[in-house]
Amino acid sequence: MRLPAHGANPHRLYEAMQINMPSSYIDFSVNVNPMQYEYILTEQQWLRWMSEYPEERSESLQTMIAERERVARSHVFVGNGAAQCIYLLAEQFAGQHIGIIEPTFTEYRRACEAYGCTVHSFMLDEHWQLPIEQMIERLPSLHALFVCHPNNPTGTIWPKETMYALLKAAHDEGVYVIVDEAFYDFWLDGYSVSSFLHTFDRLIVLRSLTKMYRLAGVRLGYVLAHEHVVKKLTEKQPPWSVNTIAQQIGKQLLNDEAFVERTKTYIASERKRIFSQLTEMGYRYSPSVVNFYMLHDETMTLFPFLLQQGIVVRHTFNFQGLDGKYIRLAIRTKEENDRLLHYLKRWNK
Amino acid sequence: MRLPAHGANPHRLYEAMQINMPSSYIDFSVNVNPMQYEYILTEQQWLRWMSEYPEERSESLQTMIAERERVARSHVFVGNGAAQCIYLLAEQFAGQHIGIIEPTFTEYRRACEAYGCTVHSFMLDEHWQLPIEQMIERLPSLHALFVCHPNNPTGTIWPKETMYALLKAAHDEGVYVIVDEAFYDFWLDGYSVSSFLHTFDRLIVLRSLTKMYRLAGVRLGYVLAHEHVVKKLTEKQPPWSVNTIAQQIGKQLLNDEAFVERTKTYIASERKRIFSQLTEMGYRYSPSVVNFYMLHDETMTLFPFLLQQGIVVRHTFNFQGLDGKYIRLAIRTKEENDRLLHYLKRWNK
Repeated sequence: MRLPAHGANPHRLYEAMQINMPSSYIDFSVNVNPMQYEYILTEQQWLRWMSEYPEERSESLQTMIAERERVARSHVFVGNGAAQCIYLLAEQFAGQHIGIIEPTFTEYRRACEAYGCTVHSFMLDEHWQLPIEQMIERLPSLHALFVCHPNNPTGTIWPKETMYALLKAAHDEGVYVIVDEAFYDFWLDGYSVSSFLHTFDRLIVLRSLTKMYRLAGVRLGYVLAHEHVVKKLTEKQPPWSVNTIAQQIGKQLLNDEAFVERTKTYIASERKRIFSQLTEMGYRYSPSVVNFYMLHDETMTLFPFLLQQGIVVRHTFNFQGLDGKYIRLAIRTKEENDRLLHYLKRWNK
Repeated sequence: MRLPAHGANPHRLYEAMQINMPSSYIDFSVNVNPMQYEYILTEQQWLRWMSEYPEERSESLQTMIAERERVARSHVFVGNGAAQCIYLLAEQFAGQHIGIIEPTFTEYRRACEAYGCTVHSFMLDEHWQLPIEQMIERLPSLHALFVCHPNNPTGTIWPKETMYALLKAAHDEGVYVIVDEAFYDFWLDGYSVSSFLHTFDRLIVLRSLTKMYRLAGVRLGYVLAHEHVVKKLTEKQPPWSVNTIAQQIGKQLLNDEAFVERTKTYIASERKRIFSQLTEMGYRYSPSVVNFYMLHDETMTLFPFLLQQGIVVRHTFNFQGLDGKYIRLAIRTKEENDRLLHYLKRWNK
């Protein structure tokens, strides 16, 4: 049996690894917010949302996002999770040459392959930085480029100047750049490329509400882009793609900035604490700015060891350039992180 | 302002018609089950479903549907509402010649146009029957054909022999036939074309759980087809398209046959009662077998009259061949139908 292609699949992971699943485990493989948003929802509301037709194109939510992001409504596209946005984008570039900066989220490649694109892989350097000169040189051979920033699974970022240089060069070459910012709202004092939307009309920003608000079961993502891009995505999107529950919850969440701020602050402080202990123990990790990070596992023995202890982590066998020699771990509650650190200490001895 | 393209939009309808919306109204424009399914769901369950990743391809639900429909799992495709299935099907036939038997559900045409298909329209005769000879003659010019059966908005059906003749002729010509059975489970003692799936490998059956279970806000539909069709649909379907709530509720519902039977029986008896009164009053209506029907409104004056009384109906301006000269009405509760009949009586005087 093959390893599951994504996190949050502990049963399948234990089965594939032929390790007995302990009676209790902690899932560090799924990189969502450890803090639970307090939804205030009545049963009546649920039942109403179940039966009410959603707005065909999430018009109200689209308007709210536009206001929050200070763009025109025609620059916002709401999708059934970021996955639908990624597939609709890949469809726009069907059969063309698409660059992907790797190691990164595996769905860009899968979507591009489903649409017969030729995928060009660009590898981050050993510090998970973009070799910008080389990248710019290769731009003329591309129609579009997928960038995950902050990057998954490394949790790393580049300086704003590097990002600007990339976007500028791509703009000059007529190359579309899709920047997936699924994790940008976990990044304390971070920057978004959305401020460049007015400058570069081939810049496409992708966002997800799944990770911050633990909405993986509801599906909600959106795209910010020039209206010619939004128009094309809309043409191919089945109507009512975004269910009523996703639209209604989305509208509630967009009004709550405080929760995001609390999350960011918690993540930053907890990450600092974990990293200082990892350094002390001599572990090598990716310098993440978000709610997950990678640990180096050169011999690939830490992975099964942790599974045996009931610490479920994300393998990296299906990330280009990682080949299982790293594991990805989410930042969870203090107690849960302590349990992880306890086993990492034991392993290290 | 244009009229809304679908039912269940009373506010927009009143606005577009420039009629003051009465303080109370009954929505006959949405053709869902008047009986409410009793969902037994706790708040804890809701919150868990919101946060849990759905199965990527609704594998458990797919298995359950396969068992119920007595087909192999590889013959079942689960979609984010029937709308996603329709768009993915249209994508398979991109740029080709597609027949649509009309007047019918408008999404087939919209999806086909989004994928650059040439649409060939075939009109039902004055008894809403298929001119089968003429249809068979024209099959060689088509790659695929969309059929809604029982048909929306007429609620009418054809004899099984006619359907078989069509499917057989299409099979011999290598034409795919997509039969949308969104309403077949409202049809007492009706037939499904699914029994022909083993005979005709280009037959594609489309189903929806929206109408029977009032799940318009959750989105759930599926396709039964040969595995070469399912494989192609799956390749282009974004992963996690069907949200966790839809998958979980779908699994609950498939076990409850009794509710469907109760619904069918109620609808049949209530429809009989309504039709007998309509006949008495001299109204012309479509001989529906399901939970909605059309009333003839040649002068297009009944439509605004009913709106003024708080009876919201579905206009037919955007159905080929109807041009607003009919209105579509759902069968609702006895009391609600009585209120409708009361106004129809008044209008008739």
